[in-house]
Amino acid sequence: MPELRKDPITGRWVIIATDRARRPSDFSREPVPPARARFCPFCAGNEEKTPPEILAYRSNGYSNQAGWSLRVVPNKFPVLGIEGDLNRQGEGMFDKMTGIGAHEVIIETPEHGGTLATMPEKQVEDVLWAFRDRVLDLKRDQRFRYILLFKNHGEPAGASLEHPHSQLIALPVIPKRVKEELDGAKLYFDFKERCVYCDILRQEAQANIRLVMETDHFFVLEPYAARFPFETWILPKRHQSHFEDADPAQLKNLAWVLRSVLRKIDKVLENPPYNFVIHTAPVQQPAMPEYHWHIEIMPKLTKVAGFEWGTGFYINPTPPEESAKFLREASGSLTSTKVETSA
Amino acid sequence: MPELRKDPITGRWVIIATDRARRPSDFSREPVPPARARFCPFCAGNEEKTPPEILAYRSNGYSNQAGWSLRVVPNKFPVLGIEGDLNRQGEGMFDKMTGIGAHEVIIETPEHGGTLATMPEKQVEDVLWAFRDRVLDLKRDQRFRYILLFKNHGEPAGASLEHPHSQLIALPVIPKRVKEELDGAKLYFDFKERCVYCDILRQEAQANIRLVMETDHFFVLEPYAARFPFETWILPKRHQSHFEDADPAQLKNLAWVLRSVLRKIDKVLENPPYNFVIHTAPVQQPAMPEYHWHIEIMPKLTKVAGFEWGTGFYINPTPPEESAKFLREASGSLTSTKVETSA
Repeated sequence: MPELRKDPITGRWVIIATDRARRPSDFSREPVPPARARFCPFCAGNEEKTPPEILAYRSNGYSNQAGWSLRVVPNKFPVLGIEGDLNRQGEGMFDKMTGIGAHEVIIETPEHGGTLATMPEKQVEDVLWAFRDRVLDLKRDQRFRYILLFKNHGEPAGASLEHPHSQLIALPVIPKRVKEELDGAKLYFDFKERCVYCDILRQEAQANIRLVMETDHFFVLEPYAARFPFETWILPKRHQSHFEDADPAQLKNLAWVLRSVLRKIDKVLENPPYNFVIHTAPVQQPAMPEYHWHIEIMPKLTKVAGFEWGTGFYINPTPPEESAKFLREASGSLTSTKVETSA
Repeated sequence: MPELRKDPITGRWVIIATDRARRPSDFSREPVPPARARFCPFCAGNEEKTPPEILAYRSNGYSNQAGWSLRVVPNKFPVLGIEGDLNRQGEGMFDKMTGIGAHEVIIETPEHGGTLATMPEKQVEDVLWAFRDRVLDLKRDQRFRYILLFKNHGEPAGASLEHPHSQLIALPVIPKRVKEELDGAKLYFDFKERCVYCDILRQEAQANIRLVMETDHFFVLEPYAARFPFETWILPKRHQSHFEDADPAQLKNLAWVLRSVLRKIDKVLENPPYNFVIHTAPVQQPAMPEYHWHIEIMPKLTKVAGFEWGTGFYINPTPPEESAKFLREASGSLTSTKVETSA
């Protein structure tokens, strides 16, 4: 029989459709193709094709010239504008404000061909440092209440350029999905006086059926009420509400963990498109005992992810215990070398 | 400048990215192809290929034989099982119950080629009557708290068979999206002592910039804080919390409205895949002064609908005022005759 499971944080019920259980090979595949050599505004040498850089890691050279290993630039087609006042106002019964915010692109490497799964570990670590550096800078702007860090990998997951990059959106409001988590975690904390995520980690470590990996600083698991097949969370072992409070040892370890998990996903699901989002506490809040930052990775498996739009309800055809087993057994080592040289 | 708009019911903020504003022709298209003549378990004559029918409208013939104009059958691959007890229980800190529920398919017509936009108006009306009949029957089962009625049109929107059909899922829980609406509407009602949807209708009728259509019994509009380009809502003019309380005059009018709107969408967006979901009050609740049933139609425009997965936030590149204009100007008459005969 299928099972209805409740997400312990948000209270969302999900159908885990065991009768329809699917193995990795049952999904129609849309593998992300190897990067092709063609003109790309994110490649080294094309710095003038992007807006001027906000941040760069470079060992030599000048701003906006080659010699960098990582660059952060404003999105050329930003969804929000950086200048101006919020100008909150009503429109009859409706509420609006000017779309103030920051929309930045983290160009993860000068190499066109490559992914977070295949690039050197040190490079992944630099990406995480860039995330942290940008959050610490932007949070000084009191207009911003939330900073979203996310990656769309592959065209079906929303990436319009194939050169490895992540994105940052700083918002003057707290996204509803985040607020649901914050509210749920608060409710749990008020009742139990413990962090719900810490409790999940304790229980999952003991049950050991949805764990994918454990390292010095992180747990990787498939959540109990997973919305999507192979939905995977990375959580710090130590309670911490804000991603930007991670210390160097954590970031170093996270680079290894993130790369390993993405390699496992690439191996089991054959290089699927995916999204990941860093869930972290609102930037203007001090450390919160009830919230626990984490990364949610959602492989985009053809059609399956579309269930929710149709039904208004999450139906997951792969029990997280199954996907955890596949990911545990997959090696985190490099499975292919589909990497071409930079354009 | 882009605008941040707040949904007046759920409080969700959405970016209306006016700087990126897209016209209908700017979306990459994936038109739903005309139905092909091939073997189909939903066609007349193949009744033995589905589970035995639960309901049928027929002028002659026997159950599970040809002669019907509409059939409702259990889904052959149900996401929930109909037999058994809920057996609510904990699993440590987690909560689960057996996946009890109903999952039915409404086969809208014996004709393989055709859509709600192209079939005769009387046939669309029958589909609405079948929705109502099934809800009235299923709500007598006290295990069910919510009944989802929805349609996935076209493969990219999740339809696995092209023969015109809708679906019904009866659930022992209230989906989170519905609960958010109910909670938001309740909050508004407690504050204003008026239904938030009725207030929206009054304001929109006066502003007349997001209205698509008005008939004796319905308003069609693009919502102020639309999450998706061309997201379209159909709302009854008269306050009513439950879809199944609609009377014959309303259902007759709704058939005309739904068909016209889908024709307009087909015309402007070139037969896009779409989902629609009927948002209605929980079945075991008596009439609610604060909630107002309605239909939400979401055309599935390539990639654009994927924004939210990536960002955790809705970004809509088409202001609803623009999409309303396109839909108002499009005729609701038949635009093409891409209809083949039944297999």
